[in-house]
Amino acid sequence: MITKSTIKQVASLRQQKFRKELGLFTVEGRKMVSELLESHFETICLFATEAYCSENKISDSRLETVTEVQMQQMSGLDTPPGILAVAKIPKQNKALTEGDFILALDGISNPGNMGTIIRTAEWFGISGIICSSDCVEIWNPKVIQATMGSVFRMRIREASLPEYLEQAKEAGKVIYGALLQGENLFQLEKKKGGIIVIGSESHGIRSEVLPFITRPITIPRADGSATESLNASIAAAIIMAEMTK
Amino acid sequence: MITKSTIKQVASLRQQKFRKELGLFTVEGRKMVSELLESHFETICLFATEAYCSENKISDSRLETVTEVQMQQMSGLDTPPGILAVAKIPKQNKALTEGDFILALDGISNPGNMGTIIRTAEWFGISGIICSSDCVEIWNPKVIQATMGSVFRMRIREASLPEYLEQAKEAGKVIYGALLQGENLFQLEKKKGGIIVIGSESHGIRSEVLPFITRPITIPRADGSATESLNASIAAAIIMAEMTK
Repeated sequence: MITKSTIKQVASLRQQKFRKELGLFTVEGRKMVSELLESHFETICLFATEAYCSENKISDSRLETVTEVQMQQMSGLDTPPGILAVAKIPKQNKALTEGDFILALDGISNPGNMGTIIRTAEWFGISGIICSSDCVEIWNPKVIQATMGSVFRMRIREASLPEYLEQAKEAGKVIYGALLQGENLFQLEKKKGGIIVIGSESHGIRSEVLPFITRPITIPRADGSATESLNASIAAAIIMAEMTK
Repeated sequence: MITKSTIKQVASLRQQKFRKELGLFTVEGRKMVSELLESHFETICLFATEAYCSENKISDSRLETVTEVQMQQMSGLDTPPGILAVAKIPKQNKALTEGDFILALDGISNPGNMGTIIRTAEWFGISGIICSSDCVEIWNPKVIQATMGSVFRMRIREASLPEYLEQAKEAGKVIYGALLQGENLFQLEKKKGGIIVIGSESHGIRSEVLPFITRPITIPRADGSATESLNASIAAAIIMAEMTK
């Protein structure tokens, strides 16, 4: 039987403060939980509703059944999928491999965009992702969900972007930045490797980061189109597709 | 003074049933409302909170101020931005121009994806969008929001995809379909014009639609990547970028 204090503790993981304090995060839904169980992440506990269990066979000794109400109390999602795991946040110890392309995210704040960018980065074989400290935290339940499992496999690290990019620039890396004014992405002479900087949804790449961009690039817009910008995850995807193809 | 019955009626527009019945939809937020007012759409009424009005100058004779609570009651968004307009759903009378590319959406159900696809389609100069009848309705507040205004300018029409595509095929159009097995998108010999079919988030292109695809295309995945698929709006964006460049 699940205790009230466990429910309260799992529910607290909706908040970044408690995820940080406890070093834990939640993973929900059939696909995401099975991706978790297959990953190198440590699973602490596993809950499913009776309805979920009767529809899906789960053979895991950690499984505890809970009521719909208890699940609702614990879930970090608007529509709880019926299965929820608590996992340990790994230590940020993975050095980024320095081959090919690194994505640097400057203030991405929408969880759906962040998760989708991580998922797309894995698709295109991006070596790692650097997040500025004001990006939405990757252990946010909505980010986890949108990654569709890529969060368990991608190398993702938080860092001060100006510091990281200064070192990269000194090391002779090409630093591409997605801007409204820049070289036409589709006419770019491709280089193997480099850092691709994507700015935030509302402000783009911030002024402290701009001086480190060595190659501003732009996704050309159709003549006569009145759109002002592309969604950040869309811009990131189009650039990743073009650079890695 | 806004009446209780008006509040109730605006609140009812959260539901597709009442949007259809009343022929109205809501538009929220500074940018979206100003895009609405600049468009050819008919604005019926306009509400803003006092806090919003004191921070933003609005000179529109239709403006009525409301309390935060009243705004919360009317808003279709999780975080009401403080300004809300009610607009008339236009008659579906726009014939799609038959030049260049048409996007056909087969069961896109996530409002954020739908809005983002509409926004991206405008960026790349797509001539029009055909939505299958089980796509999320474009007048859904979250779709409207994610389009960033493109919904007021793009030609979008609901249709039975098998019927539409059958006619298009008979007329000799090329019908591209985004599938996991198909020609490499990046090695495709480009044609000017055609229809691009994008399947739903969970099931891809449905079996009734598949026979009409004349050219299956696929976005190649990096070697060793464990991702199963791309988000539907991401796949659509990468294909639109590549086809129209």
